[in-house]
Amino acid sequence: MDIHTLRDTSRRISPYIHNTPIFTSHLLDGMTGSKLFFKCENFQKMGAFKMRGAINAVLQLTKEEQERGVVTHSSGNFAQALSLAAKNLNVPAYIVMPNNAPKVKKDAVVGYGGMITECEPTIAAREQAAAHIVTEKGATFIHPSNDLNVILGNATVGMELLNAHPNLNMIVTPVGGGGLIAGTAWSSHFFGINCKVIGGEPLLTDDAYRSLKSGEIEINHTTNTVADGLRTQLGDINFPIIQQYVDHIIRVEEDEIIQAMKLLWERLKIVIEPSSAVAFAAVLKNKDYFSNKLVGIILSGGNVDLETIRFS
Amino acid sequence: MDIHTLRDTSRRISPYIHNTPIFTSHLLDGMTGSKLFFKCENFQKMGAFKMRGAINAVLQLTKEEQERGVVTHSSGNFAQALSLAAKNLNVPAYIVMPNNAPKVKKDAVVGYGGMITECEPTIAAREQAAAHIVTEKGATFIHPSNDLNVILGNATVGMELLNAHPNLNMIVTPVGGGGLIAGTAWSSHFFGINCKVIGGEPLLTDDAYRSLKSGEIEINHTTNTVADGLRTQLGDINFPIIQQYVDHIIRVEEDEIIQAMKLLWERLKIVIEPSSAVAFAAVLKNKDYFSNKLVGIILSGGNVDLETIRFS
Repeated sequence: MDIHTLRDTSRRISPYIHNTPIFTSHLLDGMTGSKLFFKCENFQKMGAFKMRGAINAVLQLTKEEQERGVVTHSSGNFAQALSLAAKNLNVPAYIVMPNNAPKVKKDAVVGYGGMITECEPTIAAREQAAAHIVTEKGATFIHPSNDLNVILGNATVGMELLNAHPNLNMIVTPVGGGGLIAGTAWSSHFFGINCKVIGGEPLLTDDAYRSLKSGEIEINHTTNTVADGLRTQLGDINFPIIQQYVDHIIRVEEDEIIQAMKLLWERLKIVIEPSSAVAFAAVLKNKDYFSNKLVGIILSGGNVDLETIRFS
Repeated sequence: MDIHTLRDTSRRISPYIHNTPIFTSHLLDGMTGSKLFFKCENFQKMGAFKMRGAINAVLQLTKEEQERGVVTHSSGNFAQALSLAAKNLNVPAYIVMPNNAPKVKKDAVVGYGGMITECEPTIAAREQAAAHIVTEKGATFIHPSNDLNVILGNATVGMELLNAHPNLNMIVTPVGGGGLIAGTAWSSHFFGINCKVIGGEPLLTDDAYRSLKSGEIEINHTTNTVADGLRTQLGDINFPIIQQYVDHIIRVEEDEIIQAMKLLWERLKIVIEPSSAVAFAAVLKNKDYFSNKLVGIILSGGNVDLETIRFS
């Protein structure tokens, strides 16, 4: 990787994404003893940073590949992101979703023009369904997080943050599949000034924490965290980047995620999804470590089913 | 009133307030057939437009008056706004609140430095308590909505909106005590180009709607709307301004307020209080009227008790 590739990526995708606002709060600064800069990807197109990686991946295809379409398996934000990115470029998007996915998520994909193929809710079934579409349609498979072009697109979040605040001492991101923290690691390495990258990860899906300790990719045995965007598995493309550039990962409990989310809703007056709150929860849990530092926090998205949210 | 007084007000209060962002949404535009500009006063200091009127009122006092302090009766946003405005200027703020006010609201006032006097939850008791403080402390009473300087401060919301989008065809605001719509009426009259001002009002507190029809101030007989910031009564200072400059008022049902609020949370990814959703609910209810128009919508605040919110 080099700085030119990152700059080219930013130029390539900028017509298709928002340079999202950065929020601050005296009250939250006071609570943590640090100066916090919240990068609000909940305001990104389709409501999450995933749009960045998706549009970059589709833009990097040849004309012929674009005509044959793209395929992914996801029931979350990447399904919507790839659908919208493909729609922007008149590319067919085939989305493999488990047949038990919530209707609200299916509706969102269809709303962005994605074509859904339902499958049984197992990893084997979804991989088989995606492989079938690759064979039948000649579509290109794009993984939600373990893909070089997706990681490059994700890196633009940290680039925008460091462009606005070049002296950040650290950037904290949520960790799920590892695509966001890997991209942020690159942006911090090439554009930061001794800027550390730190992950927040739910204790219930702490594969990245354990993988960094053991030096090889560990598997999640539980995935029932409230942070539904993080119920995924680290990949072999992003893990080496994380090993090389990420300082450490902080694990948080479920109630810490909910409390952090409530604080952000109340104080910043913004709607973020539970996954987004994990990075801030990590800062709240380790105040001393972040004390007197300039800390960027990536709020990864805002797609939440309001009918299921309970704060009491 | 004249344009210079409005401009002076804006200059006077600008060091103490945020020029809040204006949000747009293709999806909501598509739903309504109009082009909507949401003025996000939920991002204002202390979380509501009330800060503007409060700081203007305190700034207009003489040095001697400031030293003796200010007093108001409110259990809502104006209590917090006057506390914070007074604190900014080292002025004592005495807040009369009913003894059954939620602890979260009392805590907020105390957090901003306000000194609370509790009273029985009746209009007579709160007026008596405020009058007592005026006599005893020599403090100046400032009404939350029926006060010329408060209305002038509120007018800066519409001024900022029209400064950013001079060609708005109409501005829609929620109507409670009448202070926001009266200020907006002035800003529209002096800074708009044939820009109509329209109110949204809960059917359960439709005193302004009925007052405009009858030509005299009508009384609310029910106040149990979910839009808790609008459970107040039109005043004799703002009503003549509303009569002169407001085009009309649209009444909305409780479930229309909740649905409008849910849409704004989901689509704009922002936290607004129920009162804020009333203006947008009015637009949704009368789509034909707003069709193909440039419409400013004032989202008045974002102070909501998340533990009581239910969308299902």
